[in-house]
Amino acid sequence: MHISELIDRHRETLASATAANAQRTFFAHWPEAPSGKIYGESANADGEAAFKAQLNAPFPHLLQMAEEGTVGVETSPYGFPLGITYPKVGVDALVRQATAARTAWQALTPDARASVLIEALEQGARHFFEIGYATMHTTGQGFVMAFQSSGPHAFDRALEAVAMGHAAQSSVASDVLWTKPMGKFDVSIAKTFRIVPKGINLVIGCSTFPVWNTVPGMFAGLVTGNAVIVKPHPGAVYPIAIVVGAVQRVLQQCGLDPMLCQLAVDTFDAPIALDLVRQPAVGVIDYTGGPSFGAIVEREAAAHGKIVFSEKAGVNTVILDSTDNIDKTMSNLAFSLSLYGGQMCTAPQNIFIPRDGITVNGERISVEDVALKLREHIDALVGNEKAGPSTVGTIQNEATLSRVWEAQGLGLPAVRESAALPQPGFDKARSVTPLVLRADKTRSDVYEHEWFGPISFLITVDSFDDAVDHVARSIRDHGALTSLVYCTDQARMQQAEDAIIAAGAPVAFNFNSFVWVNQSAAFSDFHGAGCNPAGNATFADWSFVTNRYNIVGVRKQA
Amino acid sequence: MHISELIDRHRETLASATAANAQRTFFAHWPEAPSGKIYGESANADGEAAFKAQLNAPFPHLLQMAEEGTVGVETSPYGFPLGITYPKVGVDALVRQATAARTAWQALTPDARASVLIEALEQGARHFFEIGYATMHTTGQGFVMAFQSSGPHAFDRALEAVAMGHAAQSSVASDVLWTKPMGKFDVSIAKTFRIVPKGINLVIGCSTFPVWNTVPGMFAGLVTGNAVIVKPHPGAVYPIAIVVGAVQRVLQQCGLDPMLCQLAVDTFDAPIALDLVRQPAVGVIDYTGGPSFGAIVEREAAAHGKIVFSEKAGVNTVILDSTDNIDKTMSNLAFSLSLYGGQMCTAPQNIFIPRDGITVNGERISVEDVALKLREHIDALVGNEKAGPSTVGTIQNEATLSRVWEAQGLGLPAVRESAALPQPGFDKARSVTPLVLRADKTRSDVYEHEWFGPISFLITVDSFDDAVDHVARSIRDHGALTSLVYCTDQARMQQAEDAIIAAGAPVAFNFNSFVWVNQSAAFSDFHGAGCNPAGNATFADWSFVTNRYNIVGVRKQA
Repeated sequence: MHISELIDRHRETLASATAANAQRTFFAHWPEAPSGKIYGESANADGEAAFKAQLNAPFPHLLQMAEEGTVGVETSPYGFPLGITYPKVGVDALVRQATAARTAWQALTPDARASVLIEALEQGARHFFEIGYATMHTTGQGFVMAFQSSGPHAFDRALEAVAMGHAAQSSVASDVLWTKPMGKFDVSIAKTFRIVPKGINLVIGCSTFPVWNTVPGMFAGLVTGNAVIVKPHPGAVYPIAIVVGAVQRVLQQCGLDPMLCQLAVDTFDAPIALDLVRQPAVGVIDYTGGPSFGAIVEREAAAHGKIVFSEKAGVNTVILDSTDNIDKTMSNLAFSLSLYGGQMCTAPQNIFIPRDGITVNGERISVEDVALKLREHIDALVGNEKAGPSTVGTIQNEATLSRVWEAQGLGLPAVRESAALPQPGFDKARSVTPLVLRADKTRSDVYEHEWFGPISFLITVDSFDDAVDHVARSIRDHGALTSLVYCTDQARMQQAEDAIIAAGAPVAFNFNSFVWVNQSAAFSDFHGAGCNPAGNATFADWSFVTNRYNIVGVRKQA
Repeated sequence: MHISELIDRHRETLASATAANAQRTFFAHWPEAPSGKIYGESANADGEAAFKAQLNAPFPHLLQMAEEGTVGVETSPYGFPLGITYPKVGVDALVRQATAARTAWQALTPDARASVLIEALEQGARHFFEIGYATMHTTGQGFVMAFQSSGPHAFDRALEAVAMGHAAQSSVASDVLWTKPMGKFDVSIAKTFRIVPKGINLVIGCSTFPVWNTVPGMFAGLVTGNAVIVKPHPGAVYPIAIVVGAVQRVLQQCGLDPMLCQLAVDTFDAPIALDLVRQPAVGVIDYTGGPSFGAIVEREAAAHGKIVFSEKAGVNTVILDSTDNIDKTMSNLAFSLSLYGGQMCTAPQNIFIPRDGITVNGERISVEDVALKLREHIDALVGNEKAGPSTVGTIQNEATLSRVWEAQGLGLPAVRESAALPQPGFDKARSVTPLVLRADKTRSDVYEHEWFGPISFLITVDSFDDAVDHVARSIRDHGALTSLVYCTDQARMQQAEDAIIAAGAPVAFNFNSFVWVNQSAAFSDFHGAGCNPAGNATFADWSFVTNRYNIVGVRKQA
């Protein structure tokens, strides 16, 4: 496959993505509906068949040698082990192979790199349904969400990063004849500007969004000329392995070294992330995961001048002040609390409400009545036989389930209790409905840290102003990926916006239909503010791509 | 003064600078010649008069209150104390005032911020001649160089940073109505994207280039919405004080808080830089200076997730392999070694030459003959009564002079010895001619660290390949701002280029006329590769501006 052909083939896609990145309008290169009309009538059946055939078998789509045997410890939160094994490659071999693969890749033009990567995404997209089942049975998401989050939505985020990286590199001339007038004569220097990638880009993934949170860093690293080592969470390897396999295959088709992009699979008992972080050849690290290990990664990297893009954890907040439609409001919020059992980094946790209730069309509604409404809408959603189980999905990690029972045992009054939720067809699925507790603002000892999972708090405060103060302080102290405000008063909306933006988190107002605060749309929403303790990465602003390389000049007397 | 008027007034300047940044062609907004025809016939006399009137007097052009009295310890390297005092402001007051000034500034558009800053540069440029004398008598540079380095060249670097910061912020829509087709209906969200600066941008300056090395970070920080505190070197306050004064005055003229940009003057005995670095409100730090304090700044900042742009120190190298014209080559190199007594971060130090000499038009010239040629050209330059003293200038720091005598006492054979150089009109000037020593490559214990000042080494190696290996390793281990290669063989040039670029330093080839490796041209040359131990900052690539702010989204149900 000629790279020049790929440049032609993907020129329009790249241009459209670049334009969308600038304009922030709606854009989706891959349709989000898992529909046979779009992806082929047999696509779902084929994907499910591929998934079933893969169970209890070695993963065949990587070009890496299994230098140290095989490894694989994945279990479906729906209640069965996957039994898939992956080639195990030692840290030294990973670094050696990445280093060897770099030179030819960084010598390509940004056009060439971007086009090869878009081809890899297009070939990977043929496996969206298998990726969907793989994601469902590693993360515990319901199938439709799994399809979207690891398929079209993730691939759009990857394309976004490719387009941003390409645009940044292309915005400066690669060579110029510089001529300086010196009065009676001129002097000329022939200059070229070379892109020098930082080295190896390590991407450390998480268990809940193994593709969505991995591909932005992975493709940003690749498009800017770096070699990439993807270190997935040991519990969620399969979905991203398909993507890495697609990249390796396309690299090989282009006559490039497929070891430019490697998968580094480890186990819970013998983790290799820190060893990889410490490799001198690793210049950039993308990290998604818990804040305690994240802090270690950041410290290690900072001590050696490495670039880190982090997404750790935050405490997302909601303010209830006023609304025109209490049912639409509570329906939207109920969905955000229920979706994937609160295991999204963007899911709300702390809902602040003034002690004297909220205003609905000029009428005061008490905290008790609001709580009841919220409960009704959650009950209706999770109790819906068709939509409930697939919306809630299952709990990825046993520790998250324990956290639900721990919260339930706090002694706080419950807006609604959590309970087991049957998942049809999966008797052993680990699935529970959302727990919502009530707390007074004085119980910051309880609510002012992340309760990852389907756990939220309805917290009474003195007033709207008090709610805004609590939210702003919480963002500054504990970080946040999202915040949501229900308020119909323009002055209060501006007050909340200014306070929340100044604290460093994005804010959404009055969501009441088919957009939820948990969602972050590629090409439009910057995901991760980058300026609060939840992390420093933003998908995909300029710094997300421009910190992965330098431009170094060559000057020749002309 | 209306900001909208400034936007109109400076639109074309901003557009030209932005275009030059992209194309990297020659561009200079301010002419570099200190000529009366350009700057007005009385400009030089007026500037000198202003300088003389300022001696032994309080500096009057800052709008800051002298909360804690005054301070000032500058001495001219030409041999007299300046006796200028500046308002002293405590760290708490600096931070408090910067914080108060931020809100209104960050609420402006990038267009408005850029235009206010260009107006400040234009008003500051009226003081180029005073800035020149102020720079001469703090850094020790000759007047013409002082005029250029702190005047037009520095201001062009500032304009470059303003244009890059403006372009980055303007390249993404500030608001959009996002409409997602959902099949039978659409959903719409009104989105705005707000620029959130990192906080206070601290800029720590150095004694040798108090304006040139300060204004890029200062103006990059300001254009991206940050408040700025400039902490100059205690020995070189005066030139940058004029610039800060001009910024404050224009802010005031625009009805903005002049405390957005403050000068923090300290003394050698009571330094405040680290105290400023540790302030929680400080989010970005620009540092130019020695590597040991630089490492402390970097560690402190990294521990608290702050952004640092550093330019520390490196060991710049030259390779002599072959040339068509030995005299032009040695003349160019002699100038680079002599200019401002080697006190430029870009000045060459280690000159590698194969043991069996170099090729000149096919003929072999021995190391001894090359050394002799180099000596002759340095002698001719520094011995020139007209050009010599002003080219060499004086030695900023007593410690640099001691280093010359230390090097002279190493026992290495000298290509040429250093000696006192009279500076006409200044009997007590601290000025010496360049010292060039010979060393074998085995004496890496001597030459493999920075000898800041007019000290260089002609180092014999086994071969061209050996020279390239030494240079690449030196860049990786000790950093470099520049490298220079004289070579007429295309294959060898490519070999050197690839090795040096891979090691992370820029490279210049065969400079033989009126461009010198020490020089770095605004809008064209990226200064500081950013990928070797000499520092992580590059004037002014995308990361130099995009790391100073975040973009945070506001979404409203539409």
